[in-house]
Amino acid sequence: MQKIRITPYELDSMRPTQKITINPTLRQTRFIKSCLGESTDQTPIWFMRQAGRYMAEYRAIRAKHSMLDVINSPELSAEVTMQPINAFGFDAAIIFSDILPLLTGMGLKLDFIPGKGPQIENPLDSTKAIDMLATPPAEVSMQGTLDAIKLVAPELEAKNTPLIGFCGAPFTLASYAIEGGGSKVYAKTKALMYTHPSAWQRLMDKLVTVQVDYLVKQVKAGASALQLFDSWAGAALSKADYIQYVQPYNTKIFAAVKRQVDAPFINFSTGTHAYLEDVAACGGDVLGADWRMPLSNAFAKAGDMAVMGNLDPIALLAPWRELRYRIDQVLAEAEGHDGYIFNLGHGILPNTPIENVQRTVDYVRSKSRE
Amino acid sequence: MQKIRITPYELDSMRPTQKITINPTLRQTRFIKSCLGESTDQTPIWFMRQAGRYMAEYRAIRAKHSMLDVINSPELSAEVTMQPINAFGFDAAIIFSDILPLLTGMGLKLDFIPGKGPQIENPLDSTKAIDMLATPPAEVSMQGTLDAIKLVAPELEAKNTPLIGFCGAPFTLASYAIEGGGSKVYAKTKALMYTHPSAWQRLMDKLVTVQVDYLVKQVKAGASALQLFDSWAGAALSKADYIQYVQPYNTKIFAAVKRQVDAPFINFSTGTHAYLEDVAACGGDVLGADWRMPLSNAFAKAGDMAVMGNLDPIALLAPWRELRYRIDQVLAEAEGHDGYIFNLGHGILPNTPIENVQRTVDYVRSKSRE
Repeated sequence: MQKIRITPYELDSMRPTQKITINPTLRQTRFIKSCLGESTDQTPIWFMRQAGRYMAEYRAIRAKHSMLDVINSPELSAEVTMQPINAFGFDAAIIFSDILPLLTGMGLKLDFIPGKGPQIENPLDSTKAIDMLATPPAEVSMQGTLDAIKLVAPELEAKNTPLIGFCGAPFTLASYAIEGGGSKVYAKTKALMYTHPSAWQRLMDKLVTVQVDYLVKQVKAGASALQLFDSWAGAALSKADYIQYVQPYNTKIFAAVKRQVDAPFINFSTGTHAYLEDVAACGGDVLGADWRMPLSNAFAKAGDMAVMGNLDPIALLAPWRELRYRIDQVLAEAEGHDGYIFNLGHGILPNTPIENVQRTVDYVRSKSRE
Repeated sequence: MQKIRITPYELDSMRPTQKITINPTLRQTRFIKSCLGESTDQTPIWFMRQAGRYMAEYRAIRAKHSMLDVINSPELSAEVTMQPINAFGFDAAIIFSDILPLLTGMGLKLDFIPGKGPQIENPLDSTKAIDMLATPPAEVSMQGTLDAIKLVAPELEAKNTPLIGFCGAPFTLASYAIEGGGSKVYAKTKALMYTHPSAWQRLMDKLVTVQVDYLVKQVKAGASALQLFDSWAGAALSKADYIQYVQPYNTKIFAAVKRQVDAPFINFSTGTHAYLEDVAACGGDVLGADWRMPLSNAFAKAGDMAVMGNLDPIALLAPWRELRYRIDQVLAEAEGHDGYIFNLGHGILPNTPIENVQRTVDYVRSKSRE
């Protein structure tokens, strides 16, 4: 069999000479400037899962449509994405979608079961199952989300609000694909890692391929920033395992996406305090901090990166006096840092009182005007 | 109303002049010596949840008896406690029981529902419910476990093996009592903390009262060491919250128990890497380390305390070559430290192959004889 040779010409064509850039007006918003470490007039604020059950407008949509219906409908996704922007004027929108549907294009069957959370009907139970996974272009599973981005980006642009696209990180997606749902100890995922390290590598490589393609296409469709969600690596892995089994793949994602697009990229994880420096070393422009650590620790580990975080979502259930005290603590830790974005340390909870959201947005704004 | 005055005589009687001491022969075992930072001929080894489902002998008992039946029967508890000692010759036994039944004496109704885990039928849903909790002596709920200790301690003594008594930490028990079962985000527990801090304080004080009494009585009954399990604080709390809402109560437990008994006390928690120094500051002789952090970090934070840990329980599901590599890593990090006890970073998993347990015990012994 003849070897396939890559000629210098082809190599050049694989190296995009022109990066995809973001809208120059949105580039000057306080959210994007803060992501890039530039000083701003006010601290930008948005909340993870800001389009969600705590809003009556959202619940009204979900009363009539399943989670997957909303994700697959560009119109409904766009509408839900706009809800918290219209209600609270957050400094950034995040496209309404979920990290898991990307797996369906690869051959996994996904369902959201009320009260039970997401379930994979045919979880990866052998190395052969990993080898059978496809790596199709993102449109195969995420056309709805890409179309929703196209639909909502101009509407957000009119409000001078950047849109964040996102993706689950390889470990988080792999653990769902292997466990078949959420997990407490990730026994199957880690047993695969430790027992079949080359199959783990093939799985992670496949996920990275699909994820990079999807992230780049979100920027092409109109997203002005990106976020990688590594929600589960910290709960599952030791520092040594993180470095061996996760870091190479997250690093690939940040590097490959950054080669192709010129948009800020947020590197978010939870429970990774034992090795936050290794998380930061994967790349990205912004290091996301969960609420468990003091924000000053995140700044210490972030180096040149900006920092996003880290109000405890449950603080929003507390009386105003206590909530304000906690906002003050977060702001005090961020004092004097240019690259800083106010956010929760994880997603907002469904039972959050709406007035506490408004009050928090107003208070953070008023404090940063002082 | 006349003030109650405590006379100097009464104060003296509240201050036990004679501490409860442990068996002097067991005091010289490698487990107890390591707990106290003394050098030993070999590294002592035991596993959290070593009496459990991975053993056929245990499954045979549980096929005929529910979890609560075993806990409430001194004979069955004693039998199950001995199983891993007889099979593997671990350097310490831990009394077979559970952290939750202690709550039943206070007025909470507990059930273990197969597939769902422990459930509290009447969770604490108001500050009044907290005020209605009783603080009875430990015998009210834990007579079975105290009798099991009395039954099994002489049998263990004949094998020169110390017995560990244990208790759940106040936060961990409070979160079960408030959430009614396991939790992902501890929203109700934290909302109570933030909204009714004085009710939280009353709840924690009641738990401490009951826990101290129970721990002291376990040593009186024949336990030679104690362990406090704070399994959930790290998953739930920030450093600032840990210091405010947990540290004072854990500190009280270590201090109050140590005033009354002269037995080594293990301070175990998981997911507390962001503030392990604050965990260590609560007290105890041994700092337990989960598997997420390098053991060297635990030694760095432990100060004068001994360290116990921290093989990932899931390493026991891996092929021997990988498992051995991971044991070597743990032992290398502990190299040169006298106060060190080999253990898992959390409880052993039900699907652990029995031969990997034997091999691990043998290997740790052979390595530490070199």
